[in-house]
Amino acid sequence: MAERGDADVTRAALLRSARIRFALYPYADVTLRDIAADIGVSAALVIKYFGCKDDLLREVVAFDDIFQRFLAGPLEGLGEHLVRSLLEHTAAPDAVDPFVASVLVAVGKQGPDWARDELVRRFVDVLADRLTGSDTRLRAELVCGYLVGVSAMRRVVEAEPLASTAPDELSARVGPVLQALIDG
Amino acid sequence: MAERGDADVTRAALLRSARIRFALYPYADVTLRDIAADIGVSAALVIKYFGCKDDLLREVVAFDDIFQRFLAGPLEGLGEHLVRSLLEHTAAPDAVDPFVASVLVAVGKQGPDWARDELVRRFVDVLADRLTGSDTRLRAELVCGYLVGVSAMRRVVEAEPLASTAPDELSARVGPVLQALIDG
Repeated sequence: MAERGDADVTRAALLRSARIRFALYPYADVTLRDIAADIGVSAALVIKYFGCKDDLLREVVAFDDIFQRFLAGPLEGLGEHLVRSLLEHTAAPDAVDPFVASVLVAVGKQGPDWARDELVRRFVDVLADRLTGSDTRLRAELVCGYLVGVSAMRRVVEAEPLASTAPDELSARVGPVLQALIDG
Repeated sequence: MAERGDADVTRAALLRSARIRFALYPYADVTLRDIAADIGVSAALVIKYFGCKDDLLREVVAFDDIFQRFLAGPLEGLGEHLVRSLLEHTAAPDAVDPFVASVLVAVGKQGPDWARDELVRRFVDVLADRLTGSDTRLRAELVCGYLVGVSAMRRVVEAEPLASTAPDELSARVGPVLQALIDG
């Protein structure tokens, strides 16, 4: 049992280090050796837990379950549900913002193509498929864009009062805008 | 005249290299030597043109004039003016998106504090000062956030059809949302 716990801790620490390095450096400059060194283990251990660098990046941008939760429920009220889910998800200590993290791997086109497309495939495409009316894909992209932007201002720029505005107030403001895009 | 032209070309090329490196790497990892090497000149030349690394970053995030142009004109219609100005500005070849570039220097809190605050000081504060009603600053931050997000989806994720949607159509969609935030 103790060993299992240690392995979990190590795995989580490696994933945290990987997230930071993939966010801050071009893909080609990120090494398993550096990620391992960040927490004082060997590159071999990273490979044991995650496989190759590509596999590790796959875990870093694996927001499929999270996006599915964000996009769950009826179209009616989905705008507010989206903001609320995002705010709840990112309220946890050490939580990763899936929108910011997804965009960062696309900066400078440095990462592999599949990683750059994850946000579109896992969020935009899924939402667009559910929308009716005209320009469904464009509208889904704008919904995604607004969430990306609000997240960037809160989590990267850390602009106040936005960064500490209560979920109720923020979803009351942002939700209707998203809903208008969802309704078309 | 020829020499002046050459100097301008060199200066522009150095600035382009600096923008890329400051966007892709943490501030501490960017060196004048690397920026110079990108275009085959010496670090001394970078210093001659721009001064120290901090001075160079100052030029990289110097969007004051651009933001002033974006924010020019009456509050009535400012939402559409903002989108249109941004789309016009970024339509030029090699144009830098001021929203994306400003957010990128804030990633990971790696840059100097003043650089991380430029977007807030030069855009959010200026807009917030002009708004009336309640929550002026929060509303200005959400305007900024939406522009950040639309830019990120267009320029970083390169999501289609958003990335190639015509300015008229995109400003007709995004403008009213911004205007609603501006009107309060």
